Amino acid sequence: MELYSYFRSSAAFRVRIALALKGLAHDYRAVHLARNEHLAAAYGAVSSARLVPQLIDGEASISQSLAIIEYLDEVHPQPPLLPGTALDRARIRSLALDIACEIHPLNNLRVLRYLVRELQVGEVAKNTWYRHWVEQGLGVVEQRLAQEPGTGRYCHGESPTLADCVLVPQIFNAQRFDCRLDHVPTVMRVFEACMAEPAFQRAQPSACPDFEP
Amino acid sequence: MELYSYFRSSAAFRVRIALALKGLAHDYRAVHLARNEHLAAAYGAVSSARLVPQLIDGEASISQSLAIIEYLDEVHPQPPLLPGTALDRARIRSLALDIACEIHPLNNLRVLRYLVRELQVGEVAKNTWYRHWVEQGLGVVEQRLAQEPGTGRYCHGESPTLADCVLVPQIFNAQRFDCRLDHVPTVMRVFEACMAEPAFQRAQPSACPDFEP
Repeated sequence: MELYSYFRSSAAFRVRIALALKGLAHDYRAVHLARNEHLAAAYGAVSSARLVPQLIDGEASISQSLAIIEYLDEVHPQPPLLPGTALDRARIRSLALDIACEIHPLNNLRVLRYLVRELQVGEVAKNTWYRHWVEQGLGVVEQRLAQEPGTGRYCHGESPTLADCVLVPQIFNAQRFDCRLDHVPTVMRVFEACMAEPAFQRAQPSACPDFEP
Repeated sequence: MELYSYFRSSAAFRVRIALALKGLAHDYRAVHLARNEHLAAAYGAVSSARLVPQLIDGEASISQSLAIIEYLDEVHPQPPLLPGTALDRARIRSLALDIACEIHPLNNLRVLRYLVRELQVGEVAKNTWYRHWVEQGLGVVEQRLAQEPGTGRYCHGESPTLADCVLVPQIFNAQRFDCRLDHVPTVMRVFEACMAEPAFQRAQPSACPDFEP
């Protein structure tokens, strides 16, 4: 397998965690988003949406981090990232989507660029926008993790799931943009549990071949 | 089952289509988002994220439209909304996420409100923002549907899937905001095929009990 990735892309980070949890070997293909390598002609042949991550598995080419992780979990079921009953999986997926649909899309690079270039939003207002969606969105996740009985050492139960693959990169982003995190103690307790695992360590930005300090 | 919905919510519309395709009876619970009924104390007990849709199935309460549809597909497998092989499902999910993660989150009510109230974005610039993400995002979907061999009468093959459940509400939104659609002929061909089906007709906003012209 090959993974097109960028060390700082949190969507790619999600897939790197899944690959590491399952112990799946792959070739890392760096695409430097900040240098617009995803807009180059060559990358259009890899990903028509010009997004990372993109997973190549033989003849197959798969986009969208959550679709990639579901695919990996179907083809390489151990350890399961969507374990349990249909209801367990619904909770795991809904937690992942609370981040992947409600927080992350508002804060990615092309959106921040639109705010600055098209709407002439200044640096302070841009960072306020970023923090607003992260802090509000993580507050929703906190409420769920603190109240719902499915929460364990991880977002759901006692082993990492799809939800943890999505949560951890969002916390990295939150820390990088100095978001407030003191209102989400359960989220941070789960984050620390994840980061104590070697798979999460191996997947993090600073462990990527294209990392820049 | 009970579905908390708002006639104009495209995330709720996705679930209404899935329920209609599977012929699943349910009680419709209207939550008037424009009148802020989702912010009332009572709704917090239903949905901690204060979003629609929310599906109640016996003791279970499930949020996030894509998680709800995956759950319905596991518990009521016929007709399948994620048919075929792991690779078929990856394509279906990635098309759904191309809309659910890349287009829709940028255009929902709370984001438009933030643009107007916090960033003092005017009406014209707000509508330009809306159309930008819809037109660009649907362009990506068009390229995939036109080029990838999996496309059939519907987004994937000859029967409606999760991808169609997500595509159709996005086109309703695009039309309501006068977005350009002449650059996405394959998308519109699939949309017309869907709207020729009674299940999609029954799920549309104008067929909802809480519809307002």
